[in-house]
Amino acid sequence: MTGLVTIVGLGPGDPRLLTPAASEALASATDLVGYGPYVDRAPEWPGQRRHSSDNRVELDRARFALDLATKGAHVAVISGGDPGVFAMAAAVFEAVENGDPSWRSLDIRVEPGITAMLAAAARVGAPLGGDFCAMSLSDNLKPWETIEARLRAALTADFVVALYNPISSARPWQLGAAFKIVAETREPDTPIILARAVMRPDERIRILPLSEVEASMADMSTIVMIGASTTRLIERPEGQAPYVYTPRYYGVRP
Amino acid sequence: MTGLVTIVGLGPGDPRLLTPAASEALASATDLVGYGPYVDRAPEWPGQRRHSSDNRVELDRARFALDLATKGAHVAVISGGDPGVFAMAAAVFEAVENGDPSWRSLDIRVEPGITAMLAAAARVGAPLGGDFCAMSLSDNLKPWETIEARLRAALTADFVVALYNPISSARPWQLGAAFKIVAETREPDTPIILARAVMRPDERIRILPLSEVEASMADMSTIVMIGASTTRLIERPEGQAPYVYTPRYYGVRP
Repeated sequence: MTGLVTIVGLGPGDPRLLTPAASEALASATDLVGYGPYVDRAPEWPGQRRHSSDNRVELDRARFALDLATKGAHVAVISGGDPGVFAMAAAVFEAVENGDPSWRSLDIRVEPGITAMLAAAARVGAPLGGDFCAMSLSDNLKPWETIEARLRAALTADFVVALYNPISSARPWQLGAAFKIVAETREPDTPIILARAVMRPDERIRILPLSEVEASMADMSTIVMIGASTTRLIERPEGQAPYVYTPRYYGVRP
Repeated sequence: MTGLVTIVGLGPGDPRLLTPAASEALASATDLVGYGPYVDRAPEWPGQRRHSSDNRVELDRARFALDLATKGAHVAVISGGDPGVFAMAAAVFEAVENGDPSWRSLDIRVEPGITAMLAAAARVGAPLGGDFCAMSLSDNLKPWETIEARLRAALTADFVVALYNPISSARPWQLGAAFKIVAETREPDTPIILARAVMRPDERIRILPLSEVEASMADMSTIVMIGASTTRLIERPEGQAPYVYTPRYYGVRP
């Protein structure tokens, strides 16, 4: 059997958002490789081997998967959301570039998924309706100065900004620093969306003005979205949450 | 029956990328509303009414759907890709904000989908593996000066940039102008991805260095992705297309 690595996006976690193509890739794999909780989400198939690991070892996991494939396995590397957005795909290609030359001839595929910002946006309206940027707030793999410069550039050019990996116990201060930078360019009533565990049983979504938001309201499972100057709320009758959206037009309404 | 509007993302077009939740929303609707070719992609259900329209009338289509829902219909507004990304969701909320006040009490849901940049990225590797921006190059609804300023900001801060709506017969020069701006900040060998009709039978994907790319290589169905300074190719054995990826790290490789 010729080896194969498919990096599979699970989406936000609700099986109703798992694409049929991703389901098929999980079902046809001989080996599943991934962070434990993600592997646990995949249905069990007879004869399939499951290799769960810790969350902090993406490159080791990638190399392990590539090595299995060189031995003929059909490996599904399981990723949350979309594998290409702050998830496992880049780690696998990093491993290929810097690893065993034989890995370059392997068939490596990516099955896309619903990434967190799309799921979160869908739950509140259409906050990504204009131009937007997506960035990871983690300074594990890039300098904080780069993150700060990118955030300032995105805010100044009036993009909506989606922040992945906003906070963790090892990175406690970065989100607060980011909110301070946001306050330099955005009005206090700018809508901020904090969307935690979207479309999972423990989902919690909050929409707050910038002036009331605090870093402690987010955790590792939260995606934070910062409105552009044009992002706005549509107020609704008593008891109904407002819709949040960013119009497609900019400047005068056509 | 209480009315409902669900804005449904079809993804790139391959049914294998349509989520089960989106399929269910299409199947349970009494009325489908959308651009003709998108409505044609939805399976037919007995008794379901189908309302196809031209591509250039998003707001009229949105108002029509909202009006049907006030009369009790369960309307699926069909959108390509993800409804929240340069597609129908923002148009529906624009219509709600500026339309009949009764529309604000309607139940309006969004079913997310695989947006073009995720599908295109998956086909070539992991070009969105770092921070990225997504912007529409259409100046129908925003001034060209805004587009140019955003593009410059994104390039200067070294984001990967995904350009939606890069070119059309009514907007022939904008993509060429954008490539000139790109050439001011990016090296001539920066990978540019032109991905047309991704995961459809007429798919065509090209990966070219910036120095060789021309606006005429794109059309209305193309998404254009511009690499960051760190985006690179992984060359592969004779006859195999290179992988393209953007590493997660920035600066020194850990």
